[in-house]
Amino acid sequence: MLKPITTQTEREAYYSRISKKHMAPLWESLHSLVPQYPSTRCIPAIWRYEDVRDAIMESGDLITSEEAVRRVLILENPGMTGEASITQTLYAGLQLILPGEVAPSHRHVQSALRFIIEGSGAYTSVDGERTTMRPGDFIITPSWTWHDHGNISEADGGEPVVWLDGLDIPLISVLDTGFAENYPEPEQPIIRSDGDSYARYGHNMVPVRHVSKSRTSPIFNYPYDRSREALARLATHSPVDEWDGVKLRYVDPSTGGYAMPTIATFMQLLPANFRGKSYRSTDATVFCVVEGTGVVNIGQEVFEFGPRDVFVMPSWASISLSAGQRDVVLFSYSDRPVQDALGLLREERVP
Amino acid sequence: MLKPITTQTEREAYYSRISKKHMAPLWESLHSLVPQYPSTRCIPAIWRYEDVRDAIMESGDLITSEEAVRRVLILENPGMTGEASITQTLYAGLQLILPGEVAPSHRHVQSALRFIIEGSGAYTSVDGERTTMRPGDFIITPSWTWHDHGNISEADGGEPVVWLDGLDIPLISVLDTGFAENYPEPEQPIIRSDGDSYARYGHNMVPVRHVSKSRTSPIFNYPYDRSREALARLATHSPVDEWDGVKLRYVDPSTGGYAMPTIATFMQLLPANFRGKSYRSTDATVFCVVEGTGVVNIGQEVFEFGPRDVFVMPSWASISLSAGQRDVVLFSYSDRPVQDALGLLREERVP
Amino acid sequence: MLKPITTQTEREAYYSRISKKHMAPLWESLHSLVPQYPSTRCIPAIWRYEDVRDAIMESGDLITSEEAVRRVLILENPGMTGEASITQTLYAGLQLILPGEVAPSHRHVQSALRFIIEGSGAYTSVDGERTTMRPGDFIITPSWTWHDHGNISEADGGEPVVWLDGLDIPLISVLDTGFAENYPEPEQPIIRSDGDSYARYGHNMVPVRHVSKSRTSPIFNYPYDRSREALARLATHSPVDEWDGVKLRYVDPSTGGYAMPTIATFMQLLPANFRGKSYRSTDATVFCVVEGTGVVNIGQEVFEFGPRDVFVMPSWASISLSAGQRDVVLFSYSDRPVQDALGLLREERVP
Amino acid sequence: MLKPITTQTEREAYYSRISKKHMAPLWESLHSLVPQYPSTRCIPAIWRYEDVRDAIMESGDLITSEEAVRRVLILENPGMTGEASITQTLYAGLQLILPGEVAPSHRHVQSALRFIIEGSGAYTSVDGERTTMRPGDFIITPSWTWHDHGNISEADGGEPVVWLDGLDIPLISVLDTGFAENYPEPEQPIIRSDGDSYARYGHNMVPVRHVSKSRTSPIFNYPYDRSREALARLATHSPVDEWDGVKLRYVDPSTGGYAMPTIATFMQLLPANFRGKSYRSTDATVFCVVEGTGVVNIGQEVFEFGPRDVFVMPSWASISLSAGQRDVVLFSYSDRPVQDALGLLREERVP
Repeated sequence: MLKPITTQTEREAYYSRISKKHMAPLWESLHSLVPQYPSTRCIPAIWRYEDVRDAIMESGDLITSEEAVRRVLILENPGMTGEASITQTLYAGLQLILPGEVAPSHRHVQSALRFIIEGSGAYTSVDGERTTMRPGDFIITPSWTWHDHGNISEADGGEPVVWLDGLDIPLISVLDTGFAENYPEPEQPIIRSDGDSYARYGHNMVPVRHVSKSRTSPIFNYPYDRSREALARLATHSPVDEWDGVKLRYVDPSTGGYAMPTIATFMQLLPANFRGKSYRSTDATVFCVVEGTGVVNIGQEVFEFGPRDVFVMPSWASISLSAGQRDVVLFSYSDRPVQDALGLLREERVP
Repeated sequence: MLKPITTQTEREAYYSRISKKHMAPLWESLHSLVPQYPSTRCIPAIWRYEDVRDAIMESGDLITSEEAVRRVLILENPGMTGEASITQTLYAGLQLILPGEVAPSHRHVQSALRFIIEGSGAYTSVDGERTTMRPGDFIITPSWTWHDHGNISEADGGEPVVWLDGLDIPLISVLDTGFAENYPEPEQPIIRSDGDSYARYGHNMVPVRHVSKSRTSPIFNYPYDRSREALARLATHSPVDEWDGVKLRYVDPSTGGYAMPTIATFMQLLPANFRGKSYRSTDATVFCVVEGTGVVNIGQEVFEFGPRDVFVMPSWASISLSAGQRDVVLFSYSDRPVQDALGLLREERVP
Repeated sequence: MLKPITTQTEREAYYSRISKKHMAPLWESLHSLVPQYPSTRCIPAIWRYEDVRDAIMESGDLITSEEAVRRVLILENPGMTGEASITQTLYAGLQLILPGEVAPSHRHVQSALRFIIEGSGAYTSVDGERTTMRPGDFIITPSWTWHDHGNISEADGGEPVVWLDGLDIPLISVLDTGFAENYPEPEQPIIRSDGDSYARYGHNMVPVRHVSKSRTSPIFNYPYDRSREALARLATHSPVDEWDGVKLRYVDPSTGGYAMPTIATFMQLLPANFRGKSYRSTDATVFCVVEGTGVVNIGQEVFEFGPRDVFVMPSWASISLSAGQRDVVLFSYSDRPVQDALGLLREERVP
Repeated sequence: MLKPITTQTEREAYYSRISKKHMAPLWESLHSLVPQYPSTRCIPAIWRYEDVRDAIMESGDLITSEEAVRRVLILENPGMTGEASITQTLYAGLQLILPGEVAPSHRHVQSALRFIIEGSGAYTSVDGERTTMRPGDFIITPSWTWHDHGNISEADGGEPVVWLDGLDIPLISVLDTGFAENYPEPEQPIIRSDGDSYARYGHNMVPVRHVSKSRTSPIFNYPYDRSREALARLATHSPVDEWDGVKLRYVDPSTGGYAMPTIATFMQLLPANFRGKSYRSTDATVFCVVEGTGVVNIGQEVFEFGPRDVFVMPSWASISLSAGQRDVVLFSYSDRPVQDALGLLREERVP
């Protein structure tokens, strides 16, 4: 270190003077601005479904779906209280819709995913097509598409339905690109039948004159039975990865890319008694347990998990996943498409 | 609005209870989280070179380049004091290097641009190739490449050299993907001659066996004389856009895309007495004046500008540009490649 | 027309002189070299399965699969006799494999498709994975992959199996890029179980670490039941195109592009009593009837067709398709990916 | 080899019978249809400019440019006499335009390149912009763009001008995608000034609102002085490739891809006394000598070459290039973009 050519006092006086011109010395903050490793406020956390289910159900007594617009409990990362974020770029929430209710139609630049957790009878409509929501289904609301949710009446068999909402709200906020609009009616008109998009795009074929207008997959409901079948088949007949078990990425069949432009989604199976090796990655990831019980180590934390629990892994924190005595199925999402598109993703597997 | 089914007091009690489980009601913050229009903390601002030049030169007495590592005054957006940001995703600073100095070699995930403002004698080395810095040149330090800066001695004609640094520091911070490393020596070894990259990639030809390993342009110095010549030719012989004058985007000649993966760069000419129409865009933009004087309206603000001034336009703020009695040349940069890659860019031109 | 400055005799003498230097006058052939419209030697033709089935079965007595290597009857376009081409760029043939036979393993640059026409018991192995061939399945042999075919024994239920082979042989020949190689054994070793590729790539998900090494779809058997289900669903619930009926393109789910780099493949349904409008296109197309009877007009020709017939439409010939009293299902293939990649495709629909 | 189960006579009878149904046995032609190595009719050949120049000039007395439409002597590969092809997919010709002449305006799907060989005064107009033709310039006529050529009067300094035409005529013919049209006037109207496209796209910048509508480079004249400068700089300061010398590919600066969708173009420098190593490639290539003398070995042939000579290398023929006592500059073109787009290119360098 060279001898400073000025005293710290002189420097502070200078800093104070230039601050009036909206300037600041880089050299005082260089190491925190350009860190050696990712240093995030996001911390590992878990929301056990048994701990939060009562609060979710209670929200149904507290406010109507119409008044709330969306009756959702935000899962806030304990390291970023008050910021409505589960990671620095992503949002997570648990949404409840009761029999007979409607969550009114609107659209926004933020992309949303719905991962169905429990209950039967709910449906969602996106851009003129309605789809039924079943546990384990991964459903997309693409950016700037009209969408509303509903539930059939109790008489018709409707149950309280809960799903995990995943959105890119914090990212859109930092990029300053958010717009939103309400639809004039509670529900948009339906112009295509349930299953239409899946028939068009879900069978490894596309309509001959299809031209992508969107960066989001034209399939908007990836049903659980199809995903589960693929996992089961590969777990039985193919080698299992020592870090991931069997892990599949949902794809946009019209591009082969991620199903959503800002959010990657995955489903993986850890065979019974699987003991996963440790890895880390720069894409902080939210997991939702579909089946089975197990243990996850994230950084210094150890969490036991069971069905319907949600947990979060921060950027560059080591993670390892283990399964109990039956197979574990995990859904997960992260901002990997953003990091991929910008050439920023870094991963490391501990051998 | 439906009648609330609970009192506000009951709700507050509920919010307090669920906050212990790191949950919060979406319905209380929906409108601010999902705004109707971009609502940013970034505000319009200008740094006039005549107001800041003394402070820059004074920094040369305050600290050595070696001690500072980078002797830079950060231009902080007045709406985000203390955050080292000029927009929500971008950083700007004015860097000074004195004759005989070296700014030591390091590398980081953050991408950097250098737009040369004044002085002669400085050079920068990137990944084994050195280039001379001349006013108006646009120079790139790609993500994760070793780089150091230097200046020849006063005896050899070195002058204090100032340039504008543009980096994606706030974006990388939000994405939690930052890594950095110091080179063991102050300066890295030079393995290719000055001008080598330009000869390979700058003439609308590329080496026959070139394979892109990077998302950044292989040209790392776009010299001002070439850019200026193109602008002059088009301003004379081609129609001038009513909003932009003549505006060119720097390209990566190996892809046709942006020269940098996270930062778009432009140079534009406003003919003498040009009165630009108003437009707005979601990519908040930093401008640096190269030649001429003029006036810019940004939102409710009106700024007169002259050579070497820097000003910033927030997302979705209306902007219009006017030239004085001689041609104006402006360099500018924004996070447009990010918004483009994610399908988020929105623009509007007032007719 | 200007008066010729020389007589035709003088010109002929000149042409004769320059021909010794391997030169020729463009002006004598300009109009045929650069035609106003595509002028092809390919003509419309149909091979009715009832007319050719006996000959196919007879080939089983004529030569063994081992001796023939591939026991195939080439369908030669009547306008290009002796050229082993059904269009100027594509080849078609009908291949027979008898119970207990093996068609020995080899590989070649030419890409191949197999569209199964009749029989049960046959299988094909590609790059270490075997798949069962069932009527209506579309199966791919990617460029330069080891492949062999076989059939189970009669005792195990094997029947004579016939499929349509589609290859890009004439195209590869013109491009001079053909290579081929025999495998040292009749059959290659099997290293993945039947259905493995489909489980990995067929469910709108891909393995998280998948990196495309090939330009061909990783799904190599698109089963008929899936394709048929999609067509049925869309024919019932969605608008039917007035030219195509319901027409789907097979996709590579890892790119969204064509399933093969040089050959496009389609399956379409014409509802009972459909009367298709006329269109033309520059990609000469081979059709194979899967179900139903109907009529096709191609240029000046009218062909009645039934199940298992093959017919061909030349470039820029008008075509219209009609269905009889039950639904028609057609498989088809063309060199559209080549024309698309090079920006050469032209289409025209008669309203 | 198994014992044939039928006699050859029986087989011939069978072949004769099925030929009436437009069918043929694959097994009799499998090896020629699916060859072990590319087996082309294209053979190595050279056209020495001193041998052909008189004939070119004589064509000026034989026919006017107006009558000929294009006064061109086709260079026909001696292995494919009468086919107007220099390789199986490409055409080459030498075009002459005399002072005061016009070659009338038309357009066609075939893409064309012009590589200027000798003379001064000629110009070409493409899509409303005229450019002057100078020896060594590489000029493009994109697919389906209006184009006409002209030459200033002798009084104004016009000289007979000769250039090499390179087109994809045989490829378009095989693909059956050719269309052509004459412009109603001999010359199209000029709507942009000479140099406009180069100013827009030639300086590693593009207009900010540019959207590619074409698969061809928006630069249509790549001037020789720029290409030559790049080669000279790299030959002096950078390592020289042992096979290619210094070899650059012309790029479309708006994509980084080939300048033309079906034809790759290159310029390379062999330093004085360079002795190139041998390589082979599946893209048959046409070379035109710009400067210097040397020797080329192609397959079993050895050709001495000098300025303005044209020679052709067939697919998969070994080639090695040597320079005489001064630097050699070679322009070349091939169908590499086609082979690249379809995944068919194969290359081999002998160490």
